[in-house]
Amino acid sequence: MSLLVVGTVAFDAIETPFGKTDKIVGGAASYIGLAASYFLRDIQLVSVIGDDFPEAFLNTLKSQGVGLEGLQIKKGEKSFFWSGKYHNDLNSRDTLETQLNVLEHFDPVVPASAKESDFLMLGNLAPMVQQKVINQLTKRPKLIVLDTMNFWMDIAMDDLMKTIAMIDVLTINDSEARQLSGEYSLVKAAQKILKMGPKVLVIKKGEHGALLFNKEEVFFAPALPLEEVYDPTGAGDSFAGGFIGYLAKTKDISFDNMKRAIIFGSAMASFTVEKFGTERLIGLSQEDVDDRVQEFVDLVQFDISLV
Amino acid sequence: MSLLVVGTVAFDAIETPFGKTDKIVGGAASYIGLAASYFLRDIQLVSVIGDDFPEAFLNTLKSQGVGLEGLQIKKGEKSFFWSGKYHNDLNSRDTLETQLNVLEHFDPVVPASAKESDFLMLGNLAPMVQQKVINQLTKRPKLIVLDTMNFWMDIAMDDLMKTIAMIDVLTINDSEARQLSGEYSLVKAAQKILKMGPKVLVIKKGEHGALLFNKEEVFFAPALPLEEVYDPTGAGDSFAGGFIGYLAKTKDISFDNMKRAIIFGSAMASFTVEKFGTERLIGLSQEDVDDRVQEFVDLVQFDISLV
Repeated sequence: MSLLVVGTVAFDAIETPFGKTDKIVGGAASYIGLAASYFLRDIQLVSVIGDDFPEAFLNTLKSQGVGLEGLQIKKGEKSFFWSGKYHNDLNSRDTLETQLNVLEHFDPVVPASAKESDFLMLGNLAPMVQQKVINQLTKRPKLIVLDTMNFWMDIAMDDLMKTIAMIDVLTINDSEARQLSGEYSLVKAAQKILKMGPKVLVIKKGEHGALLFNKEEVFFAPALPLEEVYDPTGAGDSFAGGFIGYLAKTKDISFDNMKRAIIFGSAMASFTVEKFGTERLIGLSQEDVDDRVQEFVDLVQFDISLV
Repeated sequence: MSLLVVGTVAFDAIETPFGKTDKIVGGAASYIGLAASYFLRDIQLVSVIGDDFPEAFLNTLKSQGVGLEGLQIKKGEKSFFWSGKYHNDLNSRDTLETQLNVLEHFDPVVPASAKESDFLMLGNLAPMVQQKVINQLTKRPKLIVLDTMNFWMDIAMDDLMKTIAMIDVLTINDSEARQLSGEYSLVKAAQKILKMGPKVLVIKKGEHGALLFNKEEVFFAPALPLEEVYDPTGAGDSFAGGFIGYLAKTKDISFDNMKRAIIFGSAMASFTVEKFGTERLIGLSQEDVDDRVQEFVDLVQFDISLV
């Protein structure tokens, strides 16, 4: 199976209660691509950077099997930059600075080799840009997963509604689910959102795990309680990368397989938060991933027989 | 097995985003006793009320098998009263009013019939009062579970430390675990707290579930995503009642059985929050409880075989 990933490749500067970084490599597509690369190697990435971006990281992506034909490099321009500071509870953050740079006029171009991708992961971007990618495909993917955020609900709700009507799985966090639906109860929120188009909704709750809904069922995956959480940046993207990577690898998009995919996605996210930036997602072994997934199994496993 | 429950029997006035109540019956021991009564009937309650308390609720407790020999009724005095308002997210609240009334000079007296109870549940109260109960017992219970809150950490930390050194299982919420340990990471917090005496720690995370720790293991139980959450008051107490009730019924205090007990406790809490006050905990059938537990099983069940 082949996977097309769309999203930012960018710089972040991050401050958490445990430390701060200068400009480091980040961006939704970086995390998604790296996380997915532990499940399959047939990955293409569509994004845009300036000529200020480190070659070394691009080589890392390539060596992990992430193809960069669809990565535009704009001469004389600067890459997207985001700077933020996390609050003490790590569940909320303030944006300190956003420099759109190359993202301001980003016109995604899907390379010919990726126009028939089996799986499409649309990382957080303007809904119109996400839609443009869908419209360039010559074959409807088996599964389209879209991640978005409150920012687009605030300024581009109409575009967002059109885009999410075209996809299969929507991933948002709990406050975004409440904003999008106008419902406080996540159960009610999910049922409203599933009427907007997606067949499946994933509600990400950060350190509190994730919920998976379709119209009939609900599944809950915990986050692993970790001894050290340094930096939540990229956790949601790593989750999405692991989720769609596992689905693409196993070629099974049933709800039961999505339950497993959520556990693998959660495992990838649990690595990401242990270090700043993408560092922890580079150079993991299959055993590392399997051991981490086993920790999730052990964490929630119980045996109740009701008579 | 016999269970001794200690805690408040009191009045609450509650405001949530979904409505408000006048004075209704509440109190930790009311919720604990009712929740535990679905698992065993040999329950004694130690508490204090004024002569303003409705006879009907006392009869309800008795009809559920909760013995009231240890309930002091103070003539001419008023019952403990708490009034609070929940924030929109239902995870935090402001206390509007607290009238200690009979609680101000509460001197618990364990009735002779309960001095050899097999299980002891110490609901939230002044740590010295909790300790006085332990000291009146003529036989060390098989298991002592203690619930407490940040208030006692603020004003009676020394007493609290002495009391929790005497017990087996401590139940607190996540911010209290952080306060008690001085550690942000719940994993580190748990390990520090387990050095203070308890063999097992339960960290309650409200709508985000609960974590169970001993020195070697960790288990996570989700909260059920509910369509309607009206009033979180008493959820933690109902959880504790279901937890210790299940353990007492099954006579098994192993970590594996505590995993099951946490699911039963979570099930009882999930009923409580569906209505104001204790209403939902009255008149449940065994089938209601079993069906609810089955929903938890379905919620987290997945099947991953790692090669």
